[in-house]
Amino acid sequence: VVNLSSCFLQGILERLDAGEIVIGDGGFVFALEKRGYVKAGPWTPEATVEHPEAVRQLHREFLRAGSNVLQTFTFYASEDKLENRGNYVAEKISCQKVNEAACDIAREVANEGDALVAGGVSQTPSYLSCKDKAVVKAAFRKQLDVFMKKNVDFLIAEYFEHVEEAVWAVEVLKESGKPVAATMCIGPEGDMHGVPPGQCAVQLVKAGASIVGVNCHFDPDTSLETVRLMKEGLQAAKLKAHLMSQPLAFHTPDCGKQGFIDLPEFPFALEPRIVTRWDIQKYARKAYDLGIRFIGGCCGFEPYHVRAIAEELAPERGFLPEASEKHGSWGDNLSMHTKPWVRARARKEYWENLKPASGRPYCPSMSKPDGWGVTKGAKELMQQKEATSEQQLKELFQKKF
Amino acid sequence: VVNLSSCFLQGILERLDAGEIVIGDGGFVFALEKRGYVKAGPWTPEATVEHPEAVRQLHREFLRAGSNVLQTFTFYASEDKLENRGNYVAEKISCQKVNEAACDIAREVANEGDALVAGGVSQTPSYLSCKDKAVVKAAFRKQLDVFMKKNVDFLIAEYFEHVEEAVWAVEVLKESGKPVAATMCIGPEGDMHGVPPGQCAVQLVKAGASIVGVNCHFDPDTSLETVRLMKEGLQAAKLKAHLMSQPLAFHTPDCGKQGFIDLPEFPFALEPRIVTRWDIQKYARKAYDLGIRFIGGCCGFEPYHVRAIAEELAPERGFLPEASEKHGSWGDNLSMHTKPWVRARARKEYWENLKPASGRPYCPSMSKPDGWGVTKGAKELMQQKEATSEQQLKELFQKKF
Amino acid sequence: VVNLSSCFLQGILERLDAGEIVIGDGGFVFALEKRGYVKAGPWTPEATVEHPEAVRQLHREFLRAGSNVLQTFTFYASEDKLENRGNYVAEKISCQKVNEAACDIAREVANEGDALVAGGVSQTPSYLSCKDKAVVKAAFRKQLDVFMKKNVDFLIAEYFEHVEEAVWAVEVLKESGKPVAATMCIGPEGDMHGVPPGQCAVQLVKAGASIVGVNCHFDPDTSLETVRLMKEGLQAAKLKAHLMSQPLAFHTPDCGKQGFIDLPEFPFALEPRIVTRWDIQKYARKAYDLGIRFIGGCCGFEPYHVRAIAEELAPERGFLPEASEKHGSWGDNLSMHTKPWVRARARKEYWENLKPASGRPYCPSMSKPDGWGVTKGAKELMQQKEATSEQQLKELFQKKF
Amino acid sequence: VVNLSSCFLQGILERLDAGEIVIGDGGFVFALEKRGYVKAGPWTPEATVEHPEAVRQLHREFLRAGSNVLQTFTFYASEDKLENRGNYVAEKISCQKVNEAACDIAREVANEGDALVAGGVSQTPSYLSCKDKAVVKAAFRKQLDVFMKKNVDFLIAEYFEHVEEAVWAVEVLKESGKPVAATMCIGPEGDMHGVPPGQCAVQLVKAGASIVGVNCHFDPDTSLETVRLMKEGLQAAKLKAHLMSQPLAFHTPDCGKQGFIDLPEFPFALEPRIVTRWDIQKYARKAYDLGIRFIGGCCGFEPYHVRAIAEELAPERGFLPEASEKHGSWGDNLSMHTKPWVRARARKEYWENLKPASGRPYCPSMSKPDGWGVTKGAKELMQQKEATSEQQLKELFQKKF
Repeated sequence: VVNLSSCFLQGILERLDAGEIVIGDGGFVFALEKRGYVKAGPWTPEATVEHPEAVRQLHREFLRAGSNVLQTFTFYASEDKLENRGNYVAEKISCQKVNEAACDIAREVANEGDALVAGGVSQTPSYLSCKDKAVVKAAFRKQLDVFMKKNVDFLIAEYFEHVEEAVWAVEVLKESGKPVAATMCIGPEGDMHGVPPGQCAVQLVKAGASIVGVNCHFDPDTSLETVRLMKEGLQAAKLKAHLMSQPLAFHTPDCGKQGFIDLPEFPFALEPRIVTRWDIQKYARKAYDLGIRFIGGCCGFEPYHVRAIAEELAPERGFLPEASEKHGSWGDNLSMHTKPWVRARARKEYWENLKPASGRPYCPSMSKPDGWGVTKGAKELMQQKEATSEQQLKELFQKKF
Repeated sequence: VVNLSSCFLQGILERLDAGEIVIGDGGFVFALEKRGYVKAGPWTPEATVEHPEAVRQLHREFLRAGSNVLQTFTFYASEDKLENRGNYVAEKISCQKVNEAACDIAREVANEGDALVAGGVSQTPSYLSCKDKAVVKAAFRKQLDVFMKKNVDFLIAEYFEHVEEAVWAVEVLKESGKPVAATMCIGPEGDMHGVPPGQCAVQLVKAGASIVGVNCHFDPDTSLETVRLMKEGLQAAKLKAHLMSQPLAFHTPDCGKQGFIDLPEFPFALEPRIVTRWDIQKYARKAYDLGIRFIGGCCGFEPYHVRAIAEELAPERGFLPEASEKHGSWGDNLSMHTKPWVRARARKEYWENLKPASGRPYCPSMSKPDGWGVTKGAKELMQQKEATSEQQLKELFQKKF
Repeated sequence: VVNLSSCFLQGILERLDAGEIVIGDGGFVFALEKRGYVKAGPWTPEATVEHPEAVRQLHREFLRAGSNVLQTFTFYASEDKLENRGNYVAEKISCQKVNEAACDIAREVANEGDALVAGGVSQTPSYLSCKDKAVVKAAFRKQLDVFMKKNVDFLIAEYFEHVEEAVWAVEVLKESGKPVAATMCIGPEGDMHGVPPGQCAVQLVKAGASIVGVNCHFDPDTSLETVRLMKEGLQAAKLKAHLMSQPLAFHTPDCGKQGFIDLPEFPFALEPRIVTRWDIQKYARKAYDLGIRFIGGCCGFEPYHVRAIAEELAPERGFLPEASEKHGSWGDNLSMHTKPWVRARARKEYWENLKPASGRPYCPSMSKPDGWGVTKGAKELMQQKEATSEQQLKELFQKKF
Repeated sequence: VVNLSSCFLQGILERLDAGEIVIGDGGFVFALEKRGYVKAGPWTPEATVEHPEAVRQLHREFLRAGSNVLQTFTFYASEDKLENRGNYVAEKISCQKVNEAACDIAREVANEGDALVAGGVSQTPSYLSCKDKAVVKAAFRKQLDVFMKKNVDFLIAEYFEHVEEAVWAVEVLKESGKPVAATMCIGPEGDMHGVPPGQCAVQLVKAGASIVGVNCHFDPDTSLETVRLMKEGLQAAKLKAHLMSQPLAFHTPDCGKQGFIDLPEFPFALEPRIVTRWDIQKYARKAYDLGIRFIGGCCGFEPYHVRAIAEELAPERGFLPEASEKHGSWGDNLSMHTKPWVRARARKEYWENLKPASGRPYCPSMSKPDGWGVTKGAKELMQQKEATSEQQLKELFQKKF
């Protein structure tokens, strides 16, 4: 029975403090790239203005799948990023319009259920090209102004590779007085400056984040290991915070410190790595067992992946998401199939233990990541922050290859 | 430059006769299952009434990706099938309503561009449970009545495992006077009664189909081999017809005569088999070289797969689809990426030759299909058509396992 | 109980006519290459003169493993081949000496048990470089003279890619009055001139072979399919002959018409393809069920693979080979292992169903064969027989690549 | 040019102290199991008495391949082990006879070249079943008495899972006054009691070992990592010793703390994991670069693997082994092959970069190790040393499974 809980009328911290499980949504840029509304590479969210119906429909699918939080589609929507990718964004689509439209769409759909709206900021080109703290903070503040005007329910600083920038973001977002969550796109080896996950978590909480964790760049198993290290770091520092995870929906056991971007398959041949709904049920269970209560996804997550989180944790939550009216638990609706051997798949043991074949006998199961990270000089370069201008890129490329 | 051809105002046969390439759409049941609107197992399309906005959005994405034909979402929408799956469909959602809504939505979106609307029928439980020819034909005629009332542009009989039933469907659809296309979900071994592809094609054309080919059940390579055999059969019989292919977007080199349904991964663990956009570009090129001019997809095809067909054949067609405004040919927009080694992926040779890893070292690359087809008695049973009633299923299952 | 049958004192045909199973030996060139006595590429057997103790020991191991036939190590020992590879063979090691030593060693070891000695000839450079029938036959006759002088028990013409040459070999060997077996290194597609396996078998039997089959180039499954086609051809022609198979001990599902030589891994990276003893037990059972009674192996077969044939067919034969005193059936001696989970592997079901991992996550499971066979011109060239002179090779290579 | 160095007339320490590279031999139990002379499970070396010609031939092949040290085939030849496996060893083959014959054979073959003979002891059932130090030491001393009588050149304590027992072995062997090497079959996680590799090395050197390292249980890469940790431990403790590595010739990236024994493929389905000669050349180079100068192999190593060590390090050593007269460096003898595309494989770049396919599309690339090690209780049990009596095994098994 689908039974929407009436208790979801409180804020994010009230819910988490009460021990509730909060289900996040999935990644928008990958899903909308496949649907034809986002360009891979720039990954900017001008679709909120250009094609609001497409963004609205995706929000609605996540809501229906069980998301309790709808993030505004404002990924990479800082002014410096949008200008940097100016050739893709028509002059008339200003940073402000993109952010405002994102807030309006998210709120409209959130009101169809009882979800919260979270305004999100992410890492900036200004930081990567070594701009001043003040410049970087100004970029975040510009987005925050929109979030305040549109009165989002809480704020998320996500997809940061450097804890320094994430801390700056949290500091800006805290100016609002709203609850702040902060996630980094790092693995167990820590941030790009070498700060380990435990220390990252400590710095973020000290800066004001009430919820910390990871998003993107790594698969569910690796991401949970990173959150575990964050949890250890917080415990050692005697700090309290809620934990959050929004991993990839791709298997990436072979990726290096910088995650899936360095895999040769990124971003146009990741298909064989896509996780199944059963992989996600295992992830949801492990996340829960680890003490994480804000459980969602990032790139690769489609609505059915979010539904899998909600179905796995239905015993704890006491209800199923709306979209489960179209999905039998552990494949049980296959019991109506005409072929007996397909009917035999209508059980948990079957799907739980299946090792799915790739249908690709000429392909390997793991890849070696690319990257100049292997040479010492390159590592130093990267630690001086990444280059972004065309000229810098050309020069670096020529030096290194 | 995106440049919609103004010539697309004619009917399907005018276009094909003029040598144009017509791009089909992708599979609705798999895409909408992942979005939360279709139940795997029954695979029925009551979403046209329950959630028209979701169906509309998917049509729109295919249109944007380059589809010249929008098929009404009437798969498995015969009255006997909907009744058979009655527990899933509320009494008030009649067969007629489902079919009418499907026509309305498809036409609404088709008018946003210049696409044709095709009304589709597919195999029926009545045939599989050995009902009379008259009963089966009546089921098709009921759907046809709606298609005529809603004035679709042409008709498609698709997803038939037995040429006998497909011929009956074509005969009914021909009563309308509209052009008829017919595709079977068979592989190179032929239909479930053992009729080879060449003979299937001959029978369908003699029954009145102007366009013949295959859809579903097999991957692009296998499907093209089946169409090649159909073409040979037609040539040997000195018959003329246009060719059509709408394969899976899953790699299935390991499946048996009945296709992907017998693979252990069907339907909930097919992810590692999903084809990339580059696989689809190769498919589109091969299909074109084989003389196929109605080129589309079936289960697993997402909008970006259809776009890949349109991009591969853009040189022949002279224009790109609308969604290519968000996609650089062969990954060329990666040239703006911040990391030089990702920039180095912005070229055709890279993606064309990549052997993508699965990220699943504990999984094999191929599976053995299930099925009782291995025993002689079972084969006989299947040739007596498949059982569908609960009681029959139980009895068969107990006998065989 | 190891119990050597006393009935093995008769000739090869008496044994086969009486319905006995005759177990062949394994491939010498691959085994001795790994032991350091044969050079890959030329693959010539001068070790019979240079290192007789190494050849003797390998014969002994096969005898002990259950071989009822010891083939003289005279592979590629025709005069034209040895001269052609002259830089590897010291002048003083004449063709005659190599062949004589091979006979002496095989007989010495055969007498340690009750095995038969078979003198073997194989395809010649003379044929491949389009020499006269008379020239080619003279090469075989030169080897036959040695076999007659040394009084081998019967003769084998093996490893022929063209049935024409194999027929010539059989004709020469039949001059001796001794029983003749003939095997070709072909797959189900037939010989290099396109003669199908069934016709090859018919021609060989008509030329005088009492035993026909295949050796080398393909894995057990593919080889058995080829023998099945030979059997069908003989039945259709109402001819009688015993059947024989000596496949590779490598898995080669991915090879083309010319077999494993065209696989990129040939000959120095075939390790991951090596079959297990359990694979061989399945092969032996299938070969027996197909009616093959002369069952052995070729390249890749080590003594333990031959033992696996003898163990699988022990119920039919009534005895185990000597080497089984050091091997428990289906791993049953693991029951003495100290670790319980290893003890749990001491059973048939375990080994029969195990899908062994490669430990190589960066490698694929199948390869695309090399070869110029893909271009039409190349196919014609090959059908004009292969070039062997340095000059010809250079010219061909320059033309084709 | 094959050019045996005349300098190899000195002892092991003189050679290592002078900076020479010393090449070890390969594993006897696996090689002789495949040849039919050793039983998997007990793995005892009674073949020295039963089939000396087979043991002699294998020694000779390793010598020819480049081994500078021939280890007596006395693995698991302690009296307690041979008695424990009494049903396999005839009463008349006493422990003393087995050890004496092993020494005689090794010396006979060593004298055919200029190799040293090393007497070897390995872990005992007495230790695993918690016998007194005195009992365990007595077992080693019994073997040592034979080694002294037969005057071996030096001594090796190898294949120890617990450093405590290895130290006892070194202490006994040092009583002889001969140089002692000590290798453990551990990985980077350390010994079965949790002692890390660095501490193991320190304890062994303090006990009197002049050479320390690892053998067996792990693949070359893992083994080198373990030796690296040993080297670090010695440096930290300011101790000096020569380093030695004798890894498996199987790829085992997936094994746990106890190594390949826990892999499901052990011991009868390891074939797809066998390393190529090119893998070994990479291993030899890495070992050399790490400062290891005693470089050999263990289970899975065949003569051609040892030859690969000798060929890789020929530039440093100035000569090739005898068996290289039958092997071109990096496949260069393929340049004489008749097919141009095989000729194209006669180069280092080809073999160095090849990712060899398994030919097994239904198999995975990695396995999950077995073992009760996952449960806490089991770990404790194991740290109390392993049970060996039949009764203990049964009890443990019943408790745990």
